[in-house]
Amino acid sequence: MAAEMSHKAPFKALALTLFPEMFPGSLGLSLAGKALQDGIWTLETVDIRGFARDKHRTVDDSPFGGGAGMVIRPDVLEAAVAASHASGTPLIYLTPRGRLLDQSRVRELAAGPGVSVVCGRYEGVDERFLEAREVEEISLGDFILSGGEPAAIALLDAVVRLLPGVVGKTESLDDESFETGLLEYPHYTRPDIWNGREVPEILKSGHHAKIQAWRQMRSEEITRARRPDLWARHEARVKETKT
Amino acid sequence: MAAEMSHKAPFKALALTLFPEMFPGSLGLSLAGKALQDGIWTLETVDIRGFARDKHRTVDDSPFGGGAGMVIRPDVLEAAVAASHASGTPLIYLTPRGRLLDQSRVRELAAGPGVSVVCGRYEGVDERFLEAREVEEISLGDFILSGGEPAAIALLDAVVRLLPGVVGKTESLDDESFETGLLEYPHYTRPDIWNGREVPEILKSGHHAKIQAWRQMRSEEITRARRPDLWARHEARVKETKT
Repeated sequence: MAAEMSHKAPFKALALTLFPEMFPGSLGLSLAGKALQDGIWTLETVDIRGFARDKHRTVDDSPFGGGAGMVIRPDVLEAAVAASHASGTPLIYLTPRGRLLDQSRVRELAAGPGVSVVCGRYEGVDERFLEAREVEEISLGDFILSGGEPAAIALLDAVVRLLPGVVGKTESLDDESFETGLLEYPHYTRPDIWNGREVPEILKSGHHAKIQAWRQMRSEEITRARRPDLWARHEARVKETKT
Repeated sequence: MAAEMSHKAPFKALALTLFPEMFPGSLGLSLAGKALQDGIWTLETVDIRGFARDKHRTVDDSPFGGGAGMVIRPDVLEAAVAASHASGTPLIYLTPRGRLLDQSRVRELAAGPGVSVVCGRYEGVDERFLEAREVEEISLGDFILSGGEPAAIALLDAVVRLLPGVVGKTESLDDESFETGLLEYPHYTRPDIWNGREVPEILKSGHHAKIQAWRQMRSEEITRARRPDLWARHEARVKETKT
């Protein structure tokens, strides 16, 4: 594997942030951290504040039209991006206003040369920067963080995990939630009986087809109960296949 | 504010993890970090591996029924939870199999005494542990992380941000995406003209009602374009109000 990969350029991640100390965070440890050490990917952090133009290193100002909070200036952001972002690489701004991140976008990003992520703080960034750079706005979900950094770390973690050589043979990229369109079935391991609770008999039967059928059924049950939206899409797909 | 809050017990966050070094991560800096120093919340991390029962400190084993990956043992997890989790506090497991996190659940958690979060790694945790403890399974979104830690940090960031005294007067908790059911309108700040792009005239008019109407219109446009799901809910609400 290492020999195969030595010819491939590392995946280049770039984080533009007002808090460079937040990186690499969890990305420096475990799976992502090992891949970083192995040169499968690189992480560059750029301090947006370094591109302020005045002696107070001002990066933000009040919003036109009034309202609480501060907005990051377009000129400062543009200078930071111009100095660090490689064209041809996706440029992403993490914001609850974006389109929802999903595993298919994660897969696309992992197949590319890298990703540059702008982390907002305060009320957000000037809209003209987003327009001028045609920035891709992505949201993790319908909740609000104190800034884009935790979201950037989650996004990069998801992407790095899919880079060739990161997840070993003992782990698995298949059979997981969203790869099949259903939530994953429940897992059981030793001890066989724990606190009076037994592992389902079928999982110990050695009957591969029955185990598969049981897991499929449990996946469907869990998806229907917890995620009616995914379940509706699944049903539509099944219907399409049948006709 | 400090005097008002001195009588309130800090919000207690507990993270159960195989990688305690991943904490506090970004939670130790900026808004969340200051609140941690100010005693508005506390963060305890528990190393699940410390509760393994054998000399190799084994925490996981292969799944019954076959398949790649390893599953975290229920007995080890239960011992870790029993030693650290305060009953009466929500116990959450972050997994793509969970219900989707949203801002209303974040608000509920912030109003409570604290939150305990179990971070999975590998293929997941034994289902019997989740059943026995009636663990709340929460998902950040339809993507897969290498472990629960980045998700836990994002969840705690969202919750801590809403604790009284964390967001100052210069920032705002209102008027934001999801608090209104719509995505937020665009922001503009100085310079007035940047790279030939002007701030929309109306925002400089000083006419509060017109600015409000413009922002509402832009919020609706953005929501319709990017999040048809939120837009459908918004339309249903509007219809209900009218009848």
